[in-house]
Amino acid sequence: MATVTEKMVGEYVPGLAGVPATRSNISYVDGQTGLLEYRGISIEQLAEHSSFLETTYLLVFGHLPTHTELKTFTEEVQSHRQVKFRIRDMIKSFPESGHPMDALQSCVAALGMFYPLGTQKVTDESYIREATVRLLAKLPTMVAMFHRMRHGDDPILPRDDLDHSANFLYMLTGKEPSPEAARVFDVCLILHAEHTVNASTFCSLVTASTLADPYTVITAAIGTLSGPLHGGANEEVVAMLRKIGSPEKARSFLEKRLMKKEKIMGLGHRVYKIKDPRATVLQTLAMQLFEKYGHSDLYDVALAIEEHAQELLGHKEVYPNVDFYSGIVYDKMGIVEDLFAPVFAISRVAGWLAHWREQLGENRIFRPTQIYTGQREMPYVSLDERE
Amino acid sequence: MATVTEKMVGEYVPGLAGVPATRSNISYVDGQTGLLEYRGISIEQLAEHSSFLETTYLLVFGHLPTHTELKTFTEEVQSHRQVKFRIRDMIKSFPESGHPMDALQSCVAALGMFYPLGTQKVTDESYIREATVRLLAKLPTMVAMFHRMRHGDDPILPRDDLDHSANFLYMLTGKEPSPEAARVFDVCLILHAEHTVNASTFCSLVTASTLADPYTVITAAIGTLSGPLHGGANEEVVAMLRKIGSPEKARSFLEKRLMKKEKIMGLGHRVYKIKDPRATVLQTLAMQLFEKYGHSDLYDVALAIEEHAQELLGHKEVYPNVDFYSGIVYDKMGIVEDLFAPVFAISRVAGWLAHWREQLGENRIFRPTQIYTGQREMPYVSLDERE
Repeated sequence: MATVTEKMVGEYVPGLAGVPATRSNISYVDGQTGLLEYRGISIEQLAEHSSFLETTYLLVFGHLPTHTELKTFTEEVQSHRQVKFRIRDMIKSFPESGHPMDALQSCVAALGMFYPLGTQKVTDESYIREATVRLLAKLPTMVAMFHRMRHGDDPILPRDDLDHSANFLYMLTGKEPSPEAARVFDVCLILHAEHTVNASTFCSLVTASTLADPYTVITAAIGTLSGPLHGGANEEVVAMLRKIGSPEKARSFLEKRLMKKEKIMGLGHRVYKIKDPRATVLQTLAMQLFEKYGHSDLYDVALAIEEHAQELLGHKEVYPNVDFYSGIVYDKMGIVEDLFAPVFAISRVAGWLAHWREQLGENRIFRPTQIYTGQREMPYVSLDERE
Repeated sequence: MATVTEKMVGEYVPGLAGVPATRSNISYVDGQTGLLEYRGISIEQLAEHSSFLETTYLLVFGHLPTHTELKTFTEEVQSHRQVKFRIRDMIKSFPESGHPMDALQSCVAALGMFYPLGTQKVTDESYIREATVRLLAKLPTMVAMFHRMRHGDDPILPRDDLDHSANFLYMLTGKEPSPEAARVFDVCLILHAEHTVNASTFCSLVTASTLADPYTVITAAIGTLSGPLHGGANEEVVAMLRKIGSPEKARSFLEKRLMKKEKIMGLGHRVYKIKDPRATVLQTLAMQLFEKYGHSDLYDVALAIEEHAQELLGHKEVYPNVDFYSGIVYDKMGIVEDLFAPVFAISRVAGWLAHWREQLGENRIFRPTQIYTGQREMPYVSLDERE
């Protein structure tokens, strides 16, 4: 039985699959042909020519920045990389065994206390710009800071002469990465920056629709991304590949999983019916990385899985997705597995911010309805009379 | 233009108003007749006979607890009220001017680091029970702790001989509240505990659907509640009533607002077409409170607003909602305005947890679609060629 007094629009679809929840001009995906565009520009072109900060500008503000716009934006982001000492002190209180996604979520929530709205409106373009710059700039610092401090190491201050990706890798390891490694990482950030109305982006719309501040919006989105069905997937792919161990064992592993009708991590996507275009770009990057920095056992296993999966599953339209290769790339770059999801957040924050800004432009608070399946008009039975 | 490759289900409705997003047997609302039931039991019966902890048990586990069940549950909640010293240390790092909702959101996110899932599954009933108890028990402690510490005062340890509401008021003020005040506060918690698929509850479903842990789910919901269009409303009602100042000025204030077509805080509700049943219960409670503890100037203004609004707006089905009176009650109890939203969270966490548990029972990740309104097949113009 439905809640009778609300006009019900449409039938109930679990997960709202295929139900339009927003009008958007940020990104476009065609799963039949394996196409992904940000503001109309294909992901392949952006991966080849753009940088993560330029792509973020494109996503949030709707056009590729001019020389001056990009310079100003980059300088603004650089100048906001440091975080308050109070954030560092907060992190000191975190248990060292805590998951970095929880640490990041807690830090981002705390950011809002330092940057109150005051007399501004959440819809002011100047406020949106400021919050966008702050969140973009500070997320990598906070991820690196927790990672250093959980090992008892001092956090490493950001370096203004390094670009967004090189600086993050430097803050994480204390070593300046090679230009090639920094570029591969930057392309990974571009590839993960936006993907229409996925669960975390949808969560950011719902939170934004109450006019909550952007630190709160991004905190909620980080939480949604942390779930194993969403941002946790590439971590699980690497765990699976490690468990399989060698290419020879790939086929029997796949067969066993299929017999038990279990999911195989990193294969298939709700949207893509052919190979995820991001997976194709990532595979090329991965190979470049291995050529320069040596062989990856995990990649050999992954190739074997892909090959056998095409044979065993190809007719079911199950192809490797973006998570299948990104974990292998991060692993090769020395990034530990529990940082994969925070790295995803450092990238996807671009898309969340773009959708937050878009939502504010034509806002209505999200309040769907429900199909009520419960009891009606029940008495309150007093404690003594309950059985 | 829609994203062509996803089968589109239904038309686009801003805010998904009236679109069913879940099957649920937790609460039922009939806005035409002004009815609200939790698990089939009317809110009036619960307000009269139940306690907040009993109501929470009903909401989360689906039935009124027996003597033994209630005793065990109450003892479990009592024994989990304390928080780690690391949470207290974290709060020391928060700026004193920070908003208590941001502080609460940050603390709840941090909780997840102390209680990892380990080998349990997020769907295990024992895990759900444990997390439910922890969140219920610790939210009030963390709200009171930040409030004390932002004034430079030591936090006050919870007292096991006090019930849920009395203990919170004690931790906040250092004084044991009168039984009447504690009861009024407890009824306020009952009234705000659940209200079908509002924005914050919907957010908790979206976050829960990725199998994120419950600390993360509640963090996201708190963020959504913090928006001024949702949990911030009773704070704004009190600000409005203070601004009006006296009953004589109510009519001209209303008329001016209506002329400018501005919203009047606390009047009207997306669901209710007659007076919100919670508002009726709250009004009675408020009057009891004033009889015992003296007159409230704010209430006089509120009455005048209600009276004139019925005359000026009655035909438009605009009646006082729950926020209209709750702020006045909290104000009379000495709770400062920026704690109204955290108090809402202390109560609504019951509903969020109930919906989290229900979502896990029949889960599908939320991934709606979009109406794409942007450009297609755009070239990447190189930086030097941009205008």
